[in-house]
Amino acid sequence: MTPQELVANVIAQKPAAIAKAISLIERGEHTAERSDTYDALFNLLFEAPFCSQVIGITGPPGAGKSTLVDRIIEHARADNKKVAVLAVDPSSPLTGGSILGDRVRMQRHALDSGVFIRSLANRGHLGGLSETTYQCIRVLEAAQFDFILVESIGIGQNEIEITHMVDTTVLVTIPGMGDYVQAMKAGVMEFGDILVINKCDLPGVGQVEKLLNEIAHDRAGPDDWLPPVVKITANNGEGIEGLMKNIHAHTRFAPEHQTRRSYERHLLDAMLQRAILKRFYQPLVATNAYQQLAAAIVERKRPLQDLWSLLLQ
Amino acid sequence: MTPQELVANVIAQKPAAIAKAISLIERGEHTAERSDTYDALFNLLFEAPFCSQVIGITGPPGAGKSTLVDRIIEHARADNKKVAVLAVDPSSPLTGGSILGDRVRMQRHALDSGVFIRSLANRGHLGGLSETTYQCIRVLEAAQFDFILVESIGIGQNEIEITHMVDTTVLVTIPGMGDYVQAMKAGVMEFGDILVINKCDLPGVGQVEKLLNEIAHDRAGPDDWLPPVVKITANNGEGIEGLMKNIHAHTRFAPEHQTRRSYERHLLDAMLQRAILKRFYQPLVATNAYQQLAAAIVERKRPLQDLWSLLLQ
Repeated sequence: MTPQELVANVIAQKPAAIAKAISLIERGEHTAERSDTYDALFNLLFEAPFCSQVIGITGPPGAGKSTLVDRIIEHARADNKKVAVLAVDPSSPLTGGSILGDRVRMQRHALDSGVFIRSLANRGHLGGLSETTYQCIRVLEAAQFDFILVESIGIGQNEIEITHMVDTTVLVTIPGMGDYVQAMKAGVMEFGDILVINKCDLPGVGQVEKLLNEIAHDRAGPDDWLPPVVKITANNGEGIEGLMKNIHAHTRFAPEHQTRRSYERHLLDAMLQRAILKRFYQPLVATNAYQQLAAAIVERKRPLQDLWSLLLQ
Repeated sequence: MTPQELVANVIAQKPAAIAKAISLIERGEHTAERSDTYDALFNLLFEAPFCSQVIGITGPPGAGKSTLVDRIIEHARADNKKVAVLAVDPSSPLTGGSILGDRVRMQRHALDSGVFIRSLANRGHLGGLSETTYQCIRVLEAAQFDFILVESIGIGQNEIEITHMVDTTVLVTIPGMGDYVQAMKAGVMEFGDILVINKCDLPGVGQVEKLLNEIAHDRAGPDDWLPPVVKITANNGEGIEGLMKNIHAHTRFAPEHQTRRSYERHLLDAMLQRAILKRFYQPLVATNAYQQLAAAIVERKRPLQDLWSLLLQ
């Protein structure tokens, strides 16, 4: 398959081509695969039009994110919408490169051609997990999925970055996760366009609901979107309808993919920085002269000024 | 005062000069202060010899880090050692640029010339909080403090970076912080050369002790330092003597400031990268041509390739 054929097959929504494209992106450019194919896929990043609704499903381990994802798939399929899922969860034993299809619930979608499920594990290459994730989102958008769900654990820098590359972030908590919600309250985590309480059959719903409402009100200014607190029990499907309505309401409130456009704008800056470092920094840092000088500076055997002299050469 | 005089006064251990030097570093180079003075201080980074024992005191809010810091000061002063404290805690209401002397306990050291206490609030400038912190550590080391304590909240990327720039990291927990310790167990946080349980007068000590011992054993290889679990009650000073012995044991185990040397080696790379970006990226990104092109790419009005053409001009 030529690079052009692969891209054409992605756009023609062929599952094998989509899977192959994502594998190539995951492996990154620094492999034998670094090639015209990678470049062709990379170009999709800023060529494919915006046409998907990209929804982040984030929250701590144990909050029931996968079950919720399964329910959203079910809901969307009943409406004849195509759904893709990217799972990005470093805490999950399922993301060692394995396929999410392992998850029992998800298995039932395995033969449904309107559903594409994939886990992303690669955190090694330049630009990191988040940029790989966005490239995969764009490939799936080129393949015209109606919904692209990005499931991630809601802890750590990488995961906060993921909230910038989706149109709507759904933050999933459950009753009894006191420390997590307190950390949100303290401003350690500030994200979530929709605050979901899952497992509402557990005791303590009122307490977490009160806290989440306070957080939403503290955070939102008068003209901002006020994150609704939505109660669901994903296990039995309760509240999913209401959640979907809230997701659509958020889409109408923040139209034209503005979060993603702003992410892309920053991504361009980052790409330009990397291109410049590749051209000017990497050749210099690879020299013996630099390596020896840096070691000598750390050993206090040569002064820092010599570093700047090296740069001016 | 000339730059040379300021540096000489820092080395002569004059408190006013040390305070001024840290303020200048905190404000960063991108101010009117950007000057020979800043450069002279910056050069201390790789010129002053290693002579201090740098100890990170980290842990979640409420673990009693400040009380512990106070006890360590007390212990060191009884031994006639000079102590400096840098507090770097974005969750604390005390670090909005205010002086830690506000803390009642610490006040008693205010007139002791062998003690220097300072909070760092600046997170705005290039290189971020962590690099500013390391510059301040080096100024204090130039002033020949025996101990430099760096107090920080043990959550988030910046704080993990701080563990790389100290000789010994003391991680402080208390009984009942289940989620925090579980997150450690899950590998979300992997640091702490010494694992302290503070407030051992509270119930639940045995449980957290068992968990911390498991974490220490899981993490350490056969030839590695096995982080000891140390029980203290900082409020009444119990266990501080034993903690200090463990800190010294860790210093003997990992000699020659190897963690800091390795941090400095990475810092040099980062400084070189920044110098290159300053010279080649910043002038380019400031042009109208780039800003218009980037906006047009995000709007899908021009192709990504045009970005690389701009770079080659």
